Formats: sequence, structure tokens, C-alpha cells
Amino acid sequence: MLSFSCALALWLQASESAGSGQQYLVAVLGISILSLLVAAGLSKYVISQDTGTPQMQKISNAIKQGAEAFLKRQNRTILGLALLLAVIIYLGYWLGKGDATLATRMTISFVAGALCSTLAGFSGMWVSIRSNIRTASAARSSLNKALQISLRGGAVTGLSVVALSLLGVGTLFWAFDGLSNPTEVPTQIVAFGFGASFVALFAQLGGGIYTKAADVGADLVGKVEAGIPEDDPRNPAVIADLVGDNVGDCAGRGADLFESTAAENVGAMILGAALFPVFGIKGILFPLVARAFGLIASIIGVLVVKTREDRDPMQALNRGYYVTTLFALIGFYIAVALLLKSNMMLFAAGVVGIVTSFLFVYITQYYTEYKYRPVQSIAKACLTGPATTIISGFAIGLECVAAPVLVISAAIMSSYYLGIHAGLTGVSQQSAGLYGTAIATMGMLSTAAYILAMDTFGPITDNAGGIIEMSHQPEEIRSRTDRLDSVGNTTKALTKGYAIGSAALAAFLLFSAYIDEVKGLLHKESVLFNVDIGHVPVFTGALLGAMLVFLFSSFAIKAVGRAAQTVIEEVRRQFKADPGIMKGTSDPDYGTCVDIVTKSALKAMVVPGVLAVASPVAVGMVFRLFADPNAAFPVGTVSVAAFLMVGTITGILLATLMNNGGGAWDNAKKYIETGAYGGKGSDAHKASVVGDTVGDPFKDTAGPSLHVLIKLLSTITLVAAPLFL
Amino acid sequence: MLSFSCALALWLQASESAGSGQQYLVAVLGISILSLLVAAGLSKYVISQDTGTPQMQKISNAIKQGAEAFLKRQNRTILGLALLLAVIIYLGYWLGKGDATLATRMTISFVAGALCSTLAGFSGMWVSIRSNIRTASAARSSLNKALQISLRGGAVTGLSVVALSLLGVGTLFWAFDGLSNPTEVPTQIVAFGFGASFVALFAQLGGGIYTKAADVGADLVGKVEAGIPEDDPRNPAVIADLVGDNVGDCAGRGADLFESTAAENVGAMILGAALFPVFGIKGILFPLVARAFGLIASIIGVLVVKTREDRDPMQALNRGYYVTTLFALIGFYIAVALLLKSNMMLFAAGVVGIVTSFLFVYITQYYTEYKYRPVQSIAKACLTGPATTIISGFAIGLECVAAPVLVISAAIMSSYYLGIHAGLTGVSQQSAGLYGTAIATMGMLSTAAYILAMDTFGPITDNAGGIIEMSHQPEEIRSRTDRLDSVGNTTKALTKGYAIGSAALAAFLLFSAYIDEVKGLLHKESVLFNVDIGHVPVFTGALLGAMLVFLFSSFAIKAVGRAAQTVIEEVRRQFKADPGIMKGTSDPDYGTCVDIVTKSALKAMVVPGVLAVASPVAVGMVFRLFADPNAAFPVGTVSVAAFLMVGTITGILLATLMNNGGGAWDNAKKYIETGAYGGKGSDAHKASVVGDTVGDPFKDTAGPSLHVLIKLLSTITLVAAPLFL
Repeated sequence: MLSFSCALALWLQASESAGSGQQYLVAVLGISILSLLVAAGLSKYVISQDTGTPQMQKISNAIKQGAEAFLKRQNRTILGLALLLAVIIYLGYWLGKGDATLATRMTISFVAGALCSTLAGFSGMWVSIRSNIRTASAARSSLNKALQISLRGGAVTGLSVVALSLLGVGTLFWAFDGLSNPTEVPTQIVAFGFGASFVALFAQLGGGIYTKAADVGADLVGKVEAGIPEDDPRNPAVIADLVGDNVGDCAGRGADLFESTAAENVGAMILGAALFPVFGIKGILFPLVARAFGLIASIIGVLVVKTREDRDPMQALNRGYYVTTLFALIGFYIAVALLLKSNMMLFAAGVVGIVTSFLFVYITQYYTEYKYRPVQSIAKACLTGPATTIISGFAIGLECVAAPVLVISAAIMSSYYLGIHAGLTGVSQQSAGLYGTAIATMGMLSTAAYILAMDTFGPITDNAGGIIEMSHQPEEIRSRTDRLDSVGNTTKALTKGYAIGSAALAAFLLFSAYIDEVKGLLHKESVLFNVDIGHVPVFTGALLGAMLVFLFSSFAIKAVGRAAQTVIEEVRRQFKADPGIMKGTSDPDYGTCVDIVTKSALKAMVVPGVLAVASPVAVGMVFRLFADPNAAFPVGTVSVAAFLMVGTITGILLATLMNNGGGAWDNAKKYIETGAYGGKGSDAHKASVVGDTVGDPFKDTAGPSLHVLIKLLSTITLVAAPLFL
Repeated sequence: MLSFSCALALWLQASESAGSGQQYLVAVLGISILSLLVAAGLSKYVISQDTGTPQMQKISNAIKQGAEAFLKRQNRTILGLALLLAVIIYLGYWLGKGDATLATRMTISFVAGALCSTLAGFSGMWVSIRSNIRTASAARSSLNKALQISLRGGAVTGLSVVALSLLGVGTLFWAFDGLSNPTEVPTQIVAFGFGASFVALFAQLGGGIYTKAADVGADLVGKVEAGIPEDDPRNPAVIADLVGDNVGDCAGRGADLFESTAAENVGAMILGAALFPVFGIKGILFPLVARAFGLIASIIGVLVVKTREDRDPMQALNRGYYVTTLFALIGFYIAVALLLKSNMMLFAAGVVGIVTSFLFVYITQYYTEYKYRPVQSIAKACLTGPATTIISGFAIGLECVAAPVLVISAAIMSSYYLGIHAGLTGVSQQSAGLYGTAIATMGMLSTAAYILAMDTFGPITDNAGGIIEMSHQPEEIRSRTDRLDSVGNTTKALTKGYAIGSAALAAFLLFSAYIDEVKGLLHKESVLFNVDIGHVPVFTGALLGAMLVFLFSSFAIKAVGRAAQTVIEEVRRQFKADPGIMKGTSDPDYGTCVDIVTKSALKAMVVPGVLAVASPVAVGMVFRLFADPNAAFPVGTVSVAAFLMVGTITGILLATLMNNGGGAWDNAKKYIETGAYGGKGSDAHKASVVGDTVGDPFKDTAGPSLHVLIKLLSTITLVAAPLFL
């Protein structure tokens, strides 16, 4: 693999003379296709594994059926909405701007983004619901085997997501003749990012609501009321809970990171266009090339992971992460050497990004693992009951935003000043600085495929544990899947920290892309676009942006509550109607629960989704009415910019609070379950279960949905910009 | 009273010829002194009432002792810190700017603000801890009498706060020769606002931590563990809890609103200075005159309140509010006629402010009273246990920011455009628009004294209820104080909504004052000061501002948790050491609990307080290092502006979430206690107690402290501005 990279680099350098950048685009597309082939190979590897006992298969099939049925219905709903929006986009650009070519290109990009995002989510989940049983089966004989199957199953999601995003952006760039018109085409494919965000928003919302409604519902009636353990087959909601892990964590987060990579690639290309005088087309293609090298690094990382029976599987995963980071760094260096004239300041900006991702991973661990102070303090508060558990967890959630914000502030500032001092002549300081932040983002995202593989590892091992538990395997095997499951909880938390960190770092890519778009629309490329929040309408836009984040979270959380309520009622009904269920003499009706959650999640995702899409457009169009003839840019465009920026800031903070707060409550419970403060069954444990339940919709519904919201705001303002003029 | 106002208006008009504005200043100072005399009269009225049985007196004396001891120690701590800061301010301005006169004036203003704020808080509480027993005693015979005593006791706080603030600002303006130098003096007295904020921050933090540590501690051991009712004399923490109502709700909120009125008066005067070409000194004095008329209106409002045995006391209080509003409106009209050339656009801006305060009162009621959907939905969620109670309450908290933000957005925009279209020639559109928002703020604040009287009514009736309960009065009397107490809960919630609304509306006064200050320092009065958050260092400042709000709230909440822990341990210790306490045969040791909370509250308030004061200064001084020779204004000054503005936005949202979320949980419990969902003692009730307990530090510590934080940020940046250049 390493020698392949070297050969590739040499070939790229040799074909330099062509000068049009074609060879780089070919390389990007080639690596993307190669990565998809590797993903296919990994799928084949996973599928070829043993599928365990008939009882295990019965459970696994139930999960598979439920997950596929949900995803099919969800995709139908989302693609229906997307189709409607595609028509609106086409008509809007065609009638509004009278430009049929642009309208066609925008619409094609949007549809391509929506389809690729759906495909990435679906293929990832397809493998994941097949990996769970094979991981469970392998766990009967070997920890290493189980680890490898689950990570490689997860890697299918990771590789497909990043490769499809590169392939989509690269193909559109080529198809729209970007090679001969490199500075204009990037803004024509912004709708690819919007299509991806649009699908991701609903996928994450629907999946997030599904998973937590099932989980909260199952826990409240099962653990709290009936006193049966988690994943007990007597609980009618247990299959729905396991399905939820797949559709929420796996398909949802897959769509989330697909749109991150898509939106950030396009945003970075737009910033690269501003540097055309310095680097030519190479500055525009750099983001794609850097990501392609990151894909290779991730493949290497996934393949080196192995462990031994007596080792902590987290160490093995961390080793894979270090290897990935190392190769990503090398790849980044090669990309800078080939495309950015070996500019060491810009390479340093990339290193800033990579360091940032490391720090985010560390901070997230500090706030969510039980060996550190925060979770310990929550566990101690459990001794005085659920109220103090909640208060202390919420206080930790509020506290834990500080360190990430300081890191991000340092990263943004330093990469910006590295860009300014990179000696780029012929472009504005602002453009040079922003390109520095764009490169830092690329650095941070270069390990995305590996991180995503670790993330999807989470639901696979969680499911494997559930299958082992429900099929009554011996204690020794359970402890094996428990170890993997606990690692999976950590990796899931890390991915969320990573996703929000990259969203924060990437914020400027997308703000600047929006500003460039507005300038281009008004042919005011050289006029300064001031987002002066000291100006009343701009401040008001900012206030509304922050408010949207709160309101959206409220809707997401309420949706979980409402859907969970229906599950609780159904489980209670089944327990009452057939006392044999609790005795273990008759099977509960899992299908009804799956059905109920599916329906309520799909219904509940619509309102927050529409709110997110409609709000920025409404703000832009209302503020447009406050026309000010003296202003350099229409008030609507500036107010929307403030809406976007302050919405992003608030979103980053609230998502961090919810992700880490929820994770901390979860692990405080796990800590008590290790025997601390009275262990399982004690009053402290009961209090910790309340904390865990409160944290569930925080960390798995509202928090992750906020990631997508932030990026959706960026991409929708880009696409809808002509409406605000 | 009405005829007095008319006579005053005629006199003011008659002495117009003087032209220097002296007569207006005399009127403002005169009305302030008059209001203080009225407050003294009301105190005398309250003191002359019956003080009930010896047993009631014993309880009341214990509360009085505890409250006075706490306030004395707290004031010593705060004034010590303030003295230190006064020295720093003097040295900073003297050494840094080499201007001994300015240094002296800044320091005098700061000290005056700090002293007046302390005095206002102390005098309010002095009366309030004497009104409680008299209200309790009166409740034995007449609801009307009890209502009048408690409201008039509360009015002492309301009137002292607003009058002292006017008197302070007016006197300083006069003493610094503002009459002959009207445009410069307002910026010299900004430190008055800072002194007030500084004291208010610690008073609100200390009082807020005290009240909730005692409350949470008393509830958790008393209600939940020992199963004894609220305010049961067997609970050793019960006196500390009653003391807390006074030091937190009464002294804390008194200091909060004192600094609001002080900071907003000064801010409005600074904006008025920008309109000197149009209105001369009258535009600068207008805010003070409008507030003085508001004082008269509030006095009338307080005096007309009376009720009948069979009526809802809330109706009586509302009637007083309507009367106050009506007279405030008339006063506002007179002020506009006398000082602002009868400009009807500006009068309309004032009406916008008055309407805004009405809407805020209505929205707060909707989200916190149990007849409406939000509280109902929380109460229903209590049926499925504490986890769903918390989830649904938090979702309501997130939701409830939307309506206030929309109202504030509409108010800011409309008053801004009314200002622009007020036909003010010779000044910039920006100045005219901002003066419009300033006038709206004055409109909103014109009823402040009455609102504050209603607020302090809350802790007085709460205490009265406690005294009645603890002295075992008959059921009929209890139901009377219960009715008053429940009204008090509503008025406390309303005041918080009102305070945060006025803070949001006033934000621009203080931003603009800061910008004017920076421009003045650099002699760049005519250069546009852009707070462009699309610029990387400015965005970073904004991000840090939002982060501070989260971190500060975390510290405030953790402080309550920590202090409550000490109370819980002490109560458990007492129950264990002397089983006679629970049997009712021996008295618990109230004094130790009071002592413990006092110590831990004072200790716990220091860290968040110092964080709030140090952060904006640190941000300004760090960003100062990123000097940009091309920028119109130093990067430090602009980043701090963004820090301030986005910190304000985030603070408004988080405070609203906490205030209303906490209030909604509280009333969901009260609703269940009326018998819904199984009533007292049911599982739903237990769940609702958890919600109430979680909400306590939200609504009474973190939320109100955020109000003060927001305004402290404004005033400290004003005073520290020279450091950021």
C-alpha cells in the first residue's frame, strides 16, 4: 500500500507537464473507486464469516428486518421531500436567475448529493446488520476475530462514506468542465453539499429519534418497572432497541459525516478558487487530493488492527488510529509538496488540524470516561438521588464546552495566521488566512474514514452483545462482547467530539463560501462584506440563529419523549395481556414495537427537519424587506450571515453539552455497575439510570442532529443566497 | 399624586427658559428623594403592624438573625473586593491614561455605584425580613391586610432601588459638572454602572447559591428521605431555607435590578449625547426624567392595590400593574413632550417598550403557570418517572426561548426603525435608530419599581407562609398564606422574564456605549466601528463569549450542589444524633445549618464571580497582541465587542431556559399537589419533586446570575476599554 502511494506520487509529479490538473482529478477518482473496491472486499470478508447458532440467527434476522424496513420507509419519505426540493431549486434558479445551465447543474448536484448520501448510509448499514451476528459468533472463540470483523464491518461505512463523497464532488467537477473553468465550477456544485445535508438531517433525526425512543422506552418499562436486565428477551422493545443502534448510530452518523466531508470539500475548493493567482487549479484540487491520501491512510489503519485475548481492544483501535494519522501526515506532506509548492506554513496549518483532532479525542475521553473527575463527580452525586445526579451532570455538560472552545479558538487563530504568513503574494490577507483554516480542516478530516470505522464499530459490537445476551451464551463469551461493547461506547463518544470539532473548524470554509457566493451574485468581488453584529438588523439575525438551535433541540428531544411514550404503553400492554412473557413461557411480539417506533420516528422527524430548512430562508427573505440603499450589501444577505455564524457557535456549544453530558451520565451508570457506591440494584444505581435515560436523547438525538443542523444551515444559505438579495 | 405630576410638568415647562437643563435634573433628584421618603413611609407603615404570637416571633427572629448575619458577612467580602478593584481602576486610569481627574471621577463613580447597590439591597431586605411576620400576623384576620403589608414591604425595595439609582446617576452628573459639559460626563460615570454590576454579581451569586443550597438540602433530606412536609419545624435546614428566600430573591434581585437601571440609565445618556445636535442636553437627561415619572407611576400603582377575601390576589396585583403602566405611559408622553420636541415616533418607540414588557409577562405566565400546555405536559411526563420529567422539562426550557426572542427581535427592529424615521436631522441614521432602542428600553423599564415590588412580595409571602406553617396555625389561615405564596411564585417568575427582556432590549445601549467609548479613546468619532464576525479573530472572540456563559453557569450550579451537599450531611447528622428531633420532642439546631450555608455560599461565589470579571479583560488583552496595522480599530477592541454581543445573546437564551424551565418544573409539582395524577405522595409526585429540585439552581441561581453577568460584561468592557487598545 505504501509503495503504491509512492508510485502514485511519482506518477503525479511526472505528468505535471499536462498542467490542467487532470492527472490529480484522475488520481482522486481512482483512489475513490479503489476505496470502494476495498470496502466491497471487506464486506465479502465479513459475509464469509460464520453466522452462529439458529437462535442467534433468529435474533439477528429480526434486527435486520426491522432496520431494513425502517430505512426503506425513511428513505422513501426523505427522497420524496428531496425530489420536491429539487423541483423548487430548478424552478428557483431557472425563473429567478434565468440561467437554465446553472439551474440544471444546481439540481443535478443536489440530487447527486442526496442520492450518494442515501447510498452511503444504506450500504454502511447493510454491512453493519450483517456484521453483528458474525461478530457475536466469532466472539465465541476469539476476541481478535470479533474485533476484526466488527472493525472491518465498520470500515465499510467509513470508506464508502468518504469515497462516495470524493467521487461525487470529483465527478461533478469534471462533468461541469471544472478543468477548463476551475474558479467558477466549485460554486456550482455547492448543491451537492446541500443535497447531502438535507438527507443527513432527516436520516440523523429519524434514526436518532428511533434509537432513543426504543432505548428509553425499553429501559423505563424493562429495567425500572419490571426489573429485568438490559437486552432481556422478555422485553418486547428489545429488538426495536437493537434496530435503533443501527439506524441511529450507524446510518445516521454515516449520513452526518458524509455531508461533513461533502460540504467541507466543496467549501475548501471555493476558498481555493480565491487563491487561483498563486496555485492555479492545484489550490482548488488540493482538498480532494489530501482527502484521497487520507483514504489510503485509513485503509492501512483498519488493516493493521489486531489484538490478543488478554489485551484492551481500545489499545488496538488506538494503534490503528496512530498508524492512520502517521500515513495521513505523510500523505498530507506529499499533497502539499505536489500541489502547494511545498509551502511549509500551509503544511503546518494541516498539522494544526491533525493535532486538533487528537486534542478533541483526548478531551472527549476526559469528560466521558469514568476514570476521570467529571464522571466520578456525577457517580458520587448519585448517592443523594436522581435530582443531584441530573444537576451535577448538567453542570458537567455546561463545563465541558470550555476546553473544546479553547482548542478550536487556538486552532482557528493559528491556522489563520499561518495562512497569512505563508507568503502568498497576489491575494488578500483574508483569503490567505482563510485558506490556512481550510487546510487545517483538511488535516483534521484526513483521518475521517478511520474514525467513522471506529464509530460504526460501536453499534456492531452493541448488537453483538445483545445477540449474545438474548441467546443465553455462557458468561465468558458475554464478558468478551461486553469488553468490545464498552470500547464501542468510547469510540461513539469520540466520533461525536471529532464531528463537532471538525464542524467548528470548517465553519469558516462555509461562511466564506457563502460570502463569496453573495459577492459573486452581485458582482462585488472586491467589496468588503461586513457581518457587523453591532448593526441592529444583523444582531437580530444573530439572535434568531441562536434561538433556532434551542428550538430545534427542543423539537428533537420532544419527539423522542413522544415516541418513547408510545413504546412504553405498548410494552405495558403486552406485559398485561400475556403474563407468560415475564415468566419466559411465551415470546413477546417484537414486531409491533418495531412498527410503532418506525411510524412515530418518521412522523416526529418532519417538524424539526422542516424548521431547520425553512428558518434560514425565512430570515433571509424577511430581512430583505429592510432595504438600506446606503449598505454595500443587501440587509438580508448580511443578517443571514450573522444567523448562520451565531447559530453555528450556539450549535457547537449546545451539541458539545449534550454529547458529553449524555456520555458522562451513561458512564457514571457504568461505573456504578462495576460495584462502586453499592453497585447494581443500589439506590445510587437507580439514580444513575435516571441520569443515563435523560442523557440518551441528549447524546444520541439532539446532539448529533445539531451537527447536521449546523452544516445544513451553511449549505442551505449557499443554495438559497439568490433569494436574499 | 396625579395633580402633583401635572404641577411638576407645568413648572418644568415654565422654567424652560433657563435652557441648561438644570430644572430637569432638579426634578429628577427631587422625585428620587421623594420616592425614598415614600419608601420610608411604607417601612413605617409595615413596622407599625402587629407582630403576632411569641412563637411566630421566635421563628421570624431566627430568620432575621440569619439573613442579617449572612448579608453582613457577604457585604464585607464584596466591599473588600470592590475596594481592591477601586484601587486598580484608579491606578489604571491614572498611570495608563495619565489623567488624574478622569481617574478620580471613575473611581468615585465606581465606589458610589457599589455603595448604592449595597445600600439598596440591604434596605430592601431590612424591610422584607420585618414584613414577613407582620404579613403572617395579618393573614390571621384579613387577606387584604396581608396582601397590602407584603406588597408595601416589597415596594420599599422597588422604590429604594430605582430611586437610589436615579439619585446616584443624577448626583454624579451634577457633581461632575454635566450641566456645562453634557456630552462628555455620561462616559465618565459609566463606572457607576460597573460598581453596581460588580456588587450585584456577587450579591446575586452569593444569595442565589445560599437560597438554593438551603432549599435543595432541606428538600432532599426532609421531603424525600424523611418524608416530612415542606417548612416542617423538625427539619434543621428549614430556617436556612427561609433565610435563603430573603437573601437570594429579595437582596439578590434587588441588586440585579439596581444595576440594570443604573447601567441602562448611563447607557441611554451616552446614546443621548450622540443626539446633542437635535435635542441638546434634554436628550441626555430624557432617560432620567422618564424614569422619574415611572417612579411616580409605581407609587400610585402600589397604593391602589387592594383585594377582597373571595378574590384572587393576583388580580389585585395585576390591577396595580395596569394602573402603573397607564401612569407610566402618561408620564412618558409628558417627558417626550417636554424634552424630545413631542416627537411622536420616539413616543411610539417608548410604547414599543411598554408593550414588550406586557408580552414578556404574558409569555412567562404561559410557560410557567399550570393552566397552560407546557407545565401540563411536564406534569403528565411525571407519570413515567423522574427521567421523563426531566427530559420534558428540559425540552420546554429549550422551546420557551423562541417566543421571547421573536418579541425582542420585533421590539429592537421596530424601535430602531422608529428612531430612523423620527426625522432627526443632523445625526447619523445609526445614532437615531439606536436612540429609538434606548427609548424603548426606557419605556420597558418605566414600571421597574412596581415590578420589583411584586417580586419582593414573593419572598415576603413565602416567609409568611413558612412562619404560619411552623407555628401550627389553623388550616384556614394557612390556605390564605398559601394563596399569597402561590401568587408570589408567579410574580417572581414574571420579574425574571421582565429582567431578561429588559437586558436584551438594553443590550444595544451598552454595546453602543462601549463602541462610543472606544471611538472617543482613539479620537476616531467618525470612523465606522465594524464588529465583523466574518473576520477570524472577531469570530473567535464571539465563540469565547458564548463559552463564558456556559462555563459561568456550570460554576454557579456546581456551587449550589457543593453547598447543598454540606447541608444534607449536617441534617442527616442531626437526625442521627438526636432521634427526638423527628419525634418532635426536641428542637433541631437551626443555627448550625444557617452557619454552614453562609460559609459555603460565600466561598462558592468567588470563583464564578472572578471568572466573570476576569474573562472579558483577558480576552481583550490577549487579542490585543494580534495587531493588524490595516485595521481601523485595534483587534482587541473589536474581539471584545463580539465577545460581549454573542455572550449577551447566549446569556439571554440560557437564562430564559433556566428561569422558565425551573419555574415550569416547580409548578408541575404544584399542579400534582392539587391532586392531579395521584396527588401528593404518588409516584408522579415523587418524580415531580425531582424536577422541582433540578429546576431550583436553574431558576434561582444560574438564571438570575446570568442576568447580572450579561450586564457586568457590558459595564466592565466600558471601564476596561483603555486596556484593549
